[in-house]
Amino acid sequence: MSDLLETVRSLAKKTDTKIVLVVLDGVGGLPLELNGDTELASAITPNLDTLAQDSQLGLVELVGAGITPGSGPGHLSLFGYDPLKYVVGRGALSAVGIGVKLNTGDVAVRGNFATLGAGRVIEDRRAGRPSDEKNAEIVTRLKAAIPEIGGTPVEIYTESEHRFVVVFRGQPGEPLGANISDVDPQITGVAPHVAAATDPASEKTAALINSFVARAEVALKDEPQVNGVLFRGYSDVPHFPSFADVYQLDAACIASYPMYKGLASLVGMEVLPVEGHEDALDGKVKALQDNWDKHDFFFFHVKKTDSTGEDGNFAEKVHKVEIFDELLPQLLALKPDVLAIVGDHSTPSKLLSHSWHPVPLLIHGGHGRRDAAARFTEEEAQKGTLGLRRGTDVMPLLMANALKLNKYGA
Amino acid sequence: MSDLLETVRSLAKKTDTKIVLVVLDGVGGLPLELNGDTELASAITPNLDTLAQDSQLGLVELVGAGITPGSGPGHLSLFGYDPLKYVVGRGALSAVGIGVKLNTGDVAVRGNFATLGAGRVIEDRRAGRPSDEKNAEIVTRLKAAIPEIGGTPVEIYTESEHRFVVVFRGQPGEPLGANISDVDPQITGVAPHVAAATDPASEKTAALINSFVARAEVALKDEPQVNGVLFRGYSDVPHFPSFADVYQLDAACIASYPMYKGLASLVGMEVLPVEGHEDALDGKVKALQDNWDKHDFFFFHVKKTDSTGEDGNFAEKVHKVEIFDELLPQLLALKPDVLAIVGDHSTPSKLLSHSWHPVPLLIHGGHGRRDAAARFTEEEAQKGTLGLRRGTDVMPLLMANALKLNKYGA
Repeated sequence: MSDLLETVRSLAKKTDTKIVLVVLDGVGGLPLELNGDTELASAITPNLDTLAQDSQLGLVELVGAGITPGSGPGHLSLFGYDPLKYVVGRGALSAVGIGVKLNTGDVAVRGNFATLGAGRVIEDRRAGRPSDEKNAEIVTRLKAAIPEIGGTPVEIYTESEHRFVVVFRGQPGEPLGANISDVDPQITGVAPHVAAATDPASEKTAALINSFVARAEVALKDEPQVNGVLFRGYSDVPHFPSFADVYQLDAACIASYPMYKGLASLVGMEVLPVEGHEDALDGKVKALQDNWDKHDFFFFHVKKTDSTGEDGNFAEKVHKVEIFDELLPQLLALKPDVLAIVGDHSTPSKLLSHSWHPVPLLIHGGHGRRDAAARFTEEEAQKGTLGLRRGTDVMPLLMANALKLNKYGA
Repeated sequence: MSDLLETVRSLAKKTDTKIVLVVLDGVGGLPLELNGDTELASAITPNLDTLAQDSQLGLVELVGAGITPGSGPGHLSLFGYDPLKYVVGRGALSAVGIGVKLNTGDVAVRGNFATLGAGRVIEDRRAGRPSDEKNAEIVTRLKAAIPEIGGTPVEIYTESEHRFVVVFRGQPGEPLGANISDVDPQITGVAPHVAAATDPASEKTAALINSFVARAEVALKDEPQVNGVLFRGYSDVPHFPSFADVYQLDAACIASYPMYKGLASLVGMEVLPVEGHEDALDGKVKALQDNWDKHDFFFFHVKKTDSTGEDGNFAEKVHKVEIFDELLPQLLALKPDVLAIVGDHSTPSKLLSHSWHPVPLLIHGGHGRRDAAARFTEEEAQKGTLGLRRGTDVMPLLMANALKLNKYGA
């Protein structure tokens, strides 16, 4: 546990105040042309503008200088957990995100369906991106074909498109290790790698993985496209101190996508059901309203600001920011004591990927000083009273602004 | 290894992009009068001004708040090595800088010639700053007088003016320790100190040092000015992870002075030959041009911005900045993907010494956001998008801007 997290834990107290942490996934951006406007600066955001003028602003770097965060490390940092110290594998995230409970000794693995050609050469690492329905159909076939391997129960879960999750259940006295090399070579034109254990405790798991790969190919041999599986991201069960333990918060997660629900669940948040498809912003607002009296912390996740950046669609990312702007009054109407808006990393349309650039942070409510930041943009946030900080500073600042932290020392 | 360096190492990838890191030694300054202009702000720098408007700016603190860095820690910080963790003695630096290979068990020591009066009282700690020729002549005499001490080979090397280097070669099974108190009292009017070991492994070395001092005084007793030696900065061989290992970079050093070449060599850079005397800026540009295709990282060192500050010559330091400004178009003509300009510490003319003040950092190229910084000055850099950072953040930022770092976590 990082020093600050441990200190915050020793100072946290229960109060009646409520905190809403809005994460606009990947919201930080870049200008398309040198010295131009970013996506945030290009968006027309009357509500965010007004809010920014009455808020504390700053910038946060989630992992460290120049480091591009994955979604896991980005969110863990925002939740106050040093992402260089608290590491969670994608397999565990995915499993928890779809509601699968992992126990000590289990290993969760992230899988991709792939298209294999002659000689098992990988032709498409995503099997032509099958529909979710096709994915579910293939998973059903695999479940029937591989219910267990040598006595170890095997669970297979559909995720979306080419993605699925396998959980190998460790048996009493025989915990499975998760230190195994990737089956996925991450390139096409070669055969899948044979998984190898990198420590003795993982040898049984590596054998299970290789057996799974072979049996899946037999089971899917008549499929033209979805006829192979690739694995990477093996994880055993991470144990994090919970939000309740560290912050004395009864925290709820309002998110649509498995990974974010999984992360929230790992730190002990209650994952609230959200009605609707994809980003389901209306469903998320409704979940917030319906559960307002039941929790004192809400993690409210907005996904499309990231996806549009990953697609390289500047205009559409601008639009997604504007859609959030329109929704903002409904969040404010609930009168949270502290409302924060931040990103878990930048996803500039220009780069079509996550990036290392700091993201703006806005804290409304609480107890702040005037600053010159007039908009929720990267450039204005630089004028903010909060300065440039690590992502792990966000939770302590929210707790402080909600008057939920005792004094340190006499 | 610091966490960030370890993280960067795990993420670094080889690409075709090229990085140039220009270090204007000691470039940060102070105004002579309260609220006046610094040396950088006083300089007329049309090329730097234009560049700054199209670059990301910020400020870096090399070691920590209030800490004045020596050249070693300042550069190590810029190279990404936490200078509180990676310590290299000045003796080792000087030795490596003049091309002397140090082996495990050897100790390198930095020496000054001094003028001793009656009762061995130090009259001048720099022996009247002898010419380099005089220095070489004295070293030749000492070499003849002290080829070895009690079976330990002794090597003596000329450096410049009053400076020389001694290497004591540890014998098989008898490595020499380097934890010894200084002979140099750093004041005049007293006799040189007797060296004392501060750990048992260094006792033999301390005896060697004291014997060297005595024998040198005998050998030089007929010299009117250069008749004594002072030692400080004992070092054994530092082992750092290399630039190739950490950053996947094939790095080259373009510098004139031994210490900088030594530092670069310690982190595995190839030290390129530079034609010309002293700072030899034309020779450095030529070395850069001639070797452009052979490396993907260039450390380009400019010395005179520091020396003029150490001399307390404000106007001359301003002039040295202007000379660099005139040279800048030749660097830009090579079209580096990422060009950084920074200092290894401040050397305000007002203080006639290194200082703790943050130095401006400019990153041109790569992928940055607009900022309000219009010049490469301390004051304008404060408006920059990079904020105030540690020196160890510089390399991760350059790597990121050159798109040489993979994402951290899923």
